[in-house]
Amino acid sequence: MLLLIPGPVQTRPETRAAMAQDIAPWDNDFRAVYAEIRTQVLDLAGGREGEHATLPLQGCGHFLMEAAIRSFIPAGGKLLIPRNGAYAERAVRLATEARRQVVSLHGPDTRAVAPEEVAAALAADPAISHVVMVQNETGSGIVNDPAAVGAAVRAAGRRLILDSVSAFGALPISLAAQPELDALLFTSGKCLEGLPGIGFAVARIDSLTAAAGQAGSWSFDLADVYQHALRAGWGSFRFTPPVQALAAFRVALDLHAAEGGQPARLARYAENMRVLYQGVQALGLTPYLEWRHQGPVIVTVHQPADPNFELQRFVDALKARGVLISNFYNTKVPTMRIGCVGAITPEDMRGAVAAIGKALDALGVRQRQAG
Amino acid sequence: MLLLIPGPVQTRPETRAAMAQDIAPWDNDFRAVYAEIRTQVLDLAGGREGEHATLPLQGCGHFLMEAAIRSFIPAGGKLLIPRNGAYAERAVRLATEARRQVVSLHGPDTRAVAPEEVAAALAADPAISHVVMVQNETGSGIVNDPAAVGAAVRAAGRRLILDSVSAFGALPISLAAQPELDALLFTSGKCLEGLPGIGFAVARIDSLTAAAGQAGSWSFDLADVYQHALRAGWGSFRFTPPVQALAAFRVALDLHAAEGGQPARLARYAENMRVLYQGVQALGLTPYLEWRHQGPVIVTVHQPADPNFELQRFVDALKARGVLISNFYNTKVPTMRIGCVGAITPEDMRGAVAAIGKALDALGVRQRQAG
Ligand SMILES: Cc1ncc(COP(=O)(O)O)c(C=O)c1O
Ligand SMILES: Cc1ncc(COP(=O)(O)O)c(C=O)c1O
Repeated sequence: MLLLIPGPVQTRPETRAAMAQDIAPWDNDFRAVYAEIRTQVLDLAGGREGEHATLPLQGCGHFLMEAAIRSFIPAGGKLLIPRNGAYAERAVRLATEARRQVVSLHGPDTRAVAPEEVAAALAADPAISHVVMVQNETGSGIVNDPAAVGAAVRAAGRRLILDSVSAFGALPISLAAQPELDALLFTSGKCLEGLPGIGFAVARIDSLTAAAGQAGSWSFDLADVYQHALRAGWGSFRFTPPVQALAAFRVALDLHAAEGGQPARLARYAENMRVLYQGVQALGLTPYLEWRHQGPVIVTVHQPADPNFELQRFVDALKARGVLISNFYNTKVPTMRIGCVGAITPEDMRGAVAAIGKALDALGVRQRQAG
Repeated sequence: MLLLIPGPVQTRPETRAAMAQDIAPWDNDFRAVYAEIRTQVLDLAGGREGEHATLPLQGCGHFLMEAAIRSFIPAGGKLLIPRNGAYAERAVRLATEARRQVVSLHGPDTRAVAPEEVAAALAADPAISHVVMVQNETGSGIVNDPAAVGAAVRAAGRRLILDSVSAFGALPISLAAQPELDALLFTSGKCLEGLPGIGFAVARIDSLTAAAGQAGSWSFDLADVYQHALRAGWGSFRFTPPVQALAAFRVALDLHAAEGGQPARLARYAENMRVLYQGVQALGLTPYLEWRHQGPVIVTVHQPADPNFELQRFVDALKARGVLISNFYNTKVPTMRIGCVGAITPEDMRGAVAAIGKALDALGVRQRQAG
């Protein structure tokens, strides 16, 4: 089975094999493994030892988002969220329920937010301390540009928190080059091709310690994650970590490096995306995004207008041909989402396009344009 | 290597083998797996379909504790915590940082809390809505009795939340028999012998829905976990789950049932504990707890007074002999903690006792009584 979903992704056999072992998290042998993870992650994030810290959080990307919002922005504090996709909406809800004030910058989910839009929104409200932005919108497939938006945030004297959950490892980012970036957030099971269970914030130590004490949640207090590491040692976790997911992540990071790091991974994903995008067009389907707005992580495709098309039936027909895609979508109009990430190649993508064609034929879907 | 720690525990090869696969959480094949988990868990908890719900939460036991406190007790609300161990202290901190008011019932970590003590504390403060209690105190090894304490809570017209993290699967509990029990909490990697990464609350639906809207955190809102399941289907997760840990947990639950369920597991652990407790006594060491207060999950042993004893050196010497125990302790006086849980047998325990003796000899520890 070929998993074509934007996480948990298809992994390499070596990576998932590392899951099948019992490990004590605080064991000295495992501390060495974990120390390497921290160094590799810091390096990938373009962070600097002493200036940035790699902070683990058990669970999932949403938890990490809530933790970052709580840890950097006080209760009642104001943040700006460019709302151009499903995961930005998640950030809005996380922040609102945590009693932070969200200022919304609405935009279509079919293009990136423009730096000028962010600059204008910040100029209009000096009480906004932070911008919380999604780097890769997994809901549609667009990519917001952290360097360009970050420059606007920096110019306005504000701070940036970046949801890099479905971007990190594939799309470029550098903490050192963006001093306005308080934290970037990612999880183990997306573009780094590990298994799900743990997330990381790579955070500025000065911002983190300056903000300490305002999370209103021990579990989600990233400043406390940092203090704990200082006190108890960097190999010590506050709470039981998913240690198998960490062991697998260590293998995944090595494979990432062996492939050629972020540029090589981006090149492979971009080619996966190109094959898929052009392939579905050749089948008569319509991608949701224009080519110039299409990012490398996920291709969203309009559901065909043909009455014979029904998403779950199509997903089943495709699965019978060895390809698994999501059976739900995150856009306002009906689409299907197909991931280009994970341990998959352009060759796999060509096979997937052929399978999509066969599945549509099997369902008798002739009218393939959107309704 | 034999893991003798109170979680993540030693697992069976079949269980950890289930980790090494790629899985899409919302895939229909996996939904069937997950449906079985929910049914088995509800059954083990003595819950009733329609009255109780099995709610998953990504992450770890601490997250589950915070989620339960937030979901059932409003901000500013009062809860009573019997403070007789390290994990009760965790609950105090989680509740306090979440801005709930903790009323403390202090007690030694060498015996269970008495129901009369709880009754008196509740009588003294009518504003207390909930008691949050740890069933098995992993810090020392004592067991608080949820049935006896629950009766006092029920008589006082209050509600109980039970941290059953290191108890569930081994110690008896029945939600149906204890209507005052709003939720019991546990994780995958303890007495059910799965791998860590996910926790569950088995909760009363009426209490949960009556309390909806007060969590102050989307991530930790158990009422929303329930609502999401109603809306999106019980196989649908709000956020990416550690799906491999779930797959392994399914296998672990089957092995639990095949062994004879909770009574059989308790019997094996109790025998593990007896062999260990009497074995370390025979080596001249002093258990931290009196025999009548000793629970089946973890045996805490005073560190020997001999200047040749140093915990990390001892842990290393024992590891060299194939047995891994914790290199930290959670009691006020220096102890070592040895788990009796996981896929280990009394025979393994006899080997462990022999290894402990050899490790002490290797370190030249002759004075084995506490200082
Ligand atoms: C951009 C983005 N942010 C946040 C998340 C949330 O992550 P999780 O599902 O692990 O909670 C996702 C998950 O797909 C994502 O793609
Ligand atoms: C009784 C008890 N409660 C809570 C926890 C916290 O669980 P976790 O370490 O998964 O956060 C533990 C962990 O050992 C525990 O034993």
